Amino acid sequence: MSRRIDLNADLGEGYGPYTLGDDEALLGLVTSANVACGFHGGDPSIMVATAAAAKARGVSIGAHPGFQDLRGFGRRVLAESAAEIEAGVAYQIGALQACAALGHHRVTHVKAHGALANLSNAEADVAGAIARAVRAVDRDLPLVVMPGLAVERAALEAGLYVVREIYADRAYADDGQLCARSLPDAVIHDADEAAQRVRHMVEEGAVITSSGRRIPVTIDTVCVHGDTPHAVETARAVRQILVEAGFEIAPFDTAR
Amino acid sequence: MSRRIDLNADLGEGYGPYTLGDDEALLGLVTSANVACGFHGGDPSIMVATAAAAKARGVSIGAHPGFQDLRGFGRRVLAESAAEIEAGVAYQIGALQACAALGHHRVTHVKAHGALANLSNAEADVAGAIARAVRAVDRDLPLVVMPGLAVERAALEAGLYVVREIYADRAYADDGQLCARSLPDAVIHDADEAAQRVRHMVEEGAVITSSGRRIPVTIDTVCVHGDTPHAVETARAVRQILVEAGFEIAPFDTAR
Amino acid sequence: MSRRIDLNADLGEGYGPYTLGDDEALLGLVTSANVACGFHGGDPSIMVATAAAAKARGVSIGAHPGFQDLRGFGRRVLAESAAEIEAGVAYQIGALQACAALGHHRVTHVKAHGALANLSNAEADVAGAIARAVRAVDRDLPLVVMPGLAVERAALEAGLYVVREIYADRAYADDGQLCARSLPDAVIHDADEAAQRVRHMVEEGAVITSSGRRIPVTIDTVCVHGDTPHAVETARAVRQILVEAGFEIAPFDTAR
Amino acid sequence: MSRRIDLNADLGEGYGPYTLGDDEALLGLVTSANVACGFHGGDPSIMVATAAAAKARGVSIGAHPGFQDLRGFGRRVLAESAAEIEAGVAYQIGALQACAALGHHRVTHVKAHGALANLSNAEADVAGAIARAVRAVDRDLPLVVMPGLAVERAALEAGLYVVREIYADRAYADDGQLCARSLPDAVIHDADEAAQRVRHMVEEGAVITSSGRRIPVTIDTVCVHGDTPHAVETARAVRQILVEAGFEIAPFDTAR
Repeated sequence: MSRRIDLNADLGEGYGPYTLGDDEALLGLVTSANVACGFHGGDPSIMVATAAAAKARGVSIGAHPGFQDLRGFGRRVLAESAAEIEAGVAYQIGALQACAALGHHRVTHVKAHGALANLSNAEADVAGAIARAVRAVDRDLPLVVMPGLAVERAALEAGLYVVREIYADRAYADDGQLCARSLPDAVIHDADEAAQRVRHMVEEGAVITSSGRRIPVTIDTVCVHGDTPHAVETARAVRQILVEAGFEIAPFDTAR
Repeated sequence: MSRRIDLNADLGEGYGPYTLGDDEALLGLVTSANVACGFHGGDPSIMVATAAAAKARGVSIGAHPGFQDLRGFGRRVLAESAAEIEAGVAYQIGALQACAALGHHRVTHVKAHGALANLSNAEADVAGAIARAVRAVDRDLPLVVMPGLAVERAALEAGLYVVREIYADRAYADDGQLCARSLPDAVIHDADEAAQRVRHMVEEGAVITSSGRRIPVTIDTVCVHGDTPHAVETARAVRQILVEAGFEIAPFDTAR
Repeated sequence: MSRRIDLNADLGEGYGPYTLGDDEALLGLVTSANVACGFHGGDPSIMVATAAAAKARGVSIGAHPGFQDLRGFGRRVLAESAAEIEAGVAYQIGALQACAALGHHRVTHVKAHGALANLSNAEADVAGAIARAVRAVDRDLPLVVMPGLAVERAALEAGLYVVREIYADRAYADDGQLCARSLPDAVIHDADEAAQRVRHMVEEGAVITSSGRRIPVTIDTVCVHGDTPHAVETARAVRQILVEAGFEIAPFDTAR
Repeated sequence: MSRRIDLNADLGEGYGPYTLGDDEALLGLVTSANVACGFHGGDPSIMVATAAAAKARGVSIGAHPGFQDLRGFGRRVLAESAAEIEAGVAYQIGALQACAALGHHRVTHVKAHGALANLSNAEADVAGAIARAVRAVDRDLPLVVMPGLAVERAALEAGLYVVREIYADRAYADDGQLCARSLPDAVIHDADEAAQRVRHMVEEGAVITSSGRRIPVTIDTVCVHGDTPHAVETARAVRQILVEAGFEIAPFDTAR
């Protein structure tokens, strides 16, 4: 059972005439795609097309709600109230569900994006808002979380399924949070190094921090970023090393 | 059976700090509310609040998709492809379904807004795009249409339930379309005149045009505009005259 | 010289079909209008119309740049970099200058709006970004500031003219900042009380804090909020009391 | 005198995290850049950066106003009134003027973008709105036009300088309009063919239509599209062939 793992990446992050990332290549490597829902990226046409492409490749899709800030790509904190976040997350999930239906696919998870995700790791009210939104829309929708942080606690309190993820190319601090991108060595640019690290974490069932500390966690999925130059290379290396280590690469949602 | 009729109005048309129309008063008069979905009006918080308020007053809600043009309030034609319209309508329906869930209500109809609605009356490809979007999201969602026009045909071809409506305060041309707002007498400003006219149309089962021609149609619902100065007065007069004429004022969707 | 004072209010805060505040009434009372520039409110048509209306009433206009957050009306902090703020403020000033030209008027001051203004009172980098933007566009454009705070220092360092303002209906803390709206008594709702307080401050040349402390400052203009229910009443009371006290109510920019 | 010619391209068409076209390469080839102003592409930060980059490369910049439709990249007609277009064009010109000032450059022309430009070629009221906006903001700003069409007439009537352009990679119909992109052979994909054609048109002082007809016109500038795959290649070929033919490649505005 523990020999099964999901790989996830952010997809459908273009907008109108704009594209971001190599969705086609990533769809051949990951098993779950977090699809932008029109607030920080994505538009209805792209959402339908992304859902259809994922369906054709057997890739599960999830809603990837973010702050309504296209210019900042959802990476800038917007001081919204918990009620505003709750409504906005529900809105985005529902929008993707409908676009997925047009693409003959269906939404089987939710994962927060960018600054909203970062806030949800640290702030209980933001985490609670996200969890309540998911539960209201569909209490059977799993929420992808970083283990050990506020968002996991909120999801469990809300009675949601949680899917615990690690990041392939990001360094961890000793509190289990990601090191800030502004710090040196916060991002792992070497695909092989990232892959080796993922294998260690998955096999040990632990987040490995920059200082070498082990934080035991369940790991259901591995995130490879969709918008970095090395995203495809990293995804490929991670997938290969896990296959070679005997893992089955499969969407977490099909296990239900 | 024919003594039952629905009254509908556009609600939730504010945005952020802005309000439009007297939603509170209208909720006490209509039985169905067409809720703006964030493209031409409405935002996630307003959508949740409008759904909750409608639920509390026993008013059914429907998605009211429009062009993504807040500045023009969805009243300016945007030259979108049928595929773009299809995706955008689906997006908006899904978004409202999710916000309605947060407000403990559910979406039980769809009605196009403004310039999108006007196009769907005249152009088969636009009408078809809307019908396909509704069917993909939920084939049991009724589509509110003007009888005898392209949108009704598209809805029937798509196998959707159709709900046929007349307008309380708008004059009709002999082809069954609304007279353009730019024409004199296109809008009926006197509430009592509007109410009398509605009673005649509902009792005769016919649209009555400016020239006095009768176009026989099924009438399931009467639209009173939500954003005109006389909206509340007209809604009140229409409701009263229909009650006095022995009609039961009730949401069409509960008849299923 | 000190017997001359300007009254300013926020105007042109509608968007598309939406209106906010009673611009017509305020134009008869104030001598300077801070015009929204399309980011937190206002659109090009409204900006032209507001400039033309102000011109017709002899009211000076200024650019009122805010965060690009219509839904939050610029009252929610958006975590922009200083460079982003600088570019956004310049953009908004230029946009209003051009719209003002269409309305046969010209922009003669700048005043930051909402959350951006609050940040500029406390944070030197935000204040510096605003001051640099003004200087780059037109170094002769005065910047309206709250005296004694970061934004005044930044404006002086940038070599800008500063126009110092007090708020008619807001309570002050002992550090010279406005009391947070969330605190009791932060907003003065009684028009006469607000007017009396303004007269004391203007005649004493000092900000009077909630505790009664006097902070001596130059006062060039008095802000009456444009979007509160009592805005017009307060503006009228303030104007009347200052006229009775012998002040000439006149735009600050004509003094140059 | 006639041996001098300008090359122009659309630049700064990205938005937030998104990029479009190879601005860096084009800046080395063209002498005038049409800079997106935030409505169909571009954001304040990109506008400042594009202005600064153009300044550094000695490239003139112009405002490139379009419809407020980022998702459609300004290529979809939006049914705005002439007054709305006038205000929107002024807004965008002013915004770029201010951003250019931050980038130590200045705006020396205006050219309409996409669907707005197409409309201005055919419809006198749209053309007039654009011309009035330019004149109101700065009557010395030249307007780039397609010769012989409505926009040229409107510019001349408004007393504006007109700069007449031909398109390097687009086929012309016998009425002097561009062939619709949907037609076969409407776009010339071969860089050398495009360059040869430009040389013929510039040397003959005539637009050459698909049927071989010559329409004599003054040609001040040649447009190479900024967002096609072959933009850079075409720009390079056009520049080279014109240099070899003895033309001086220089911005039209410096001729004043």
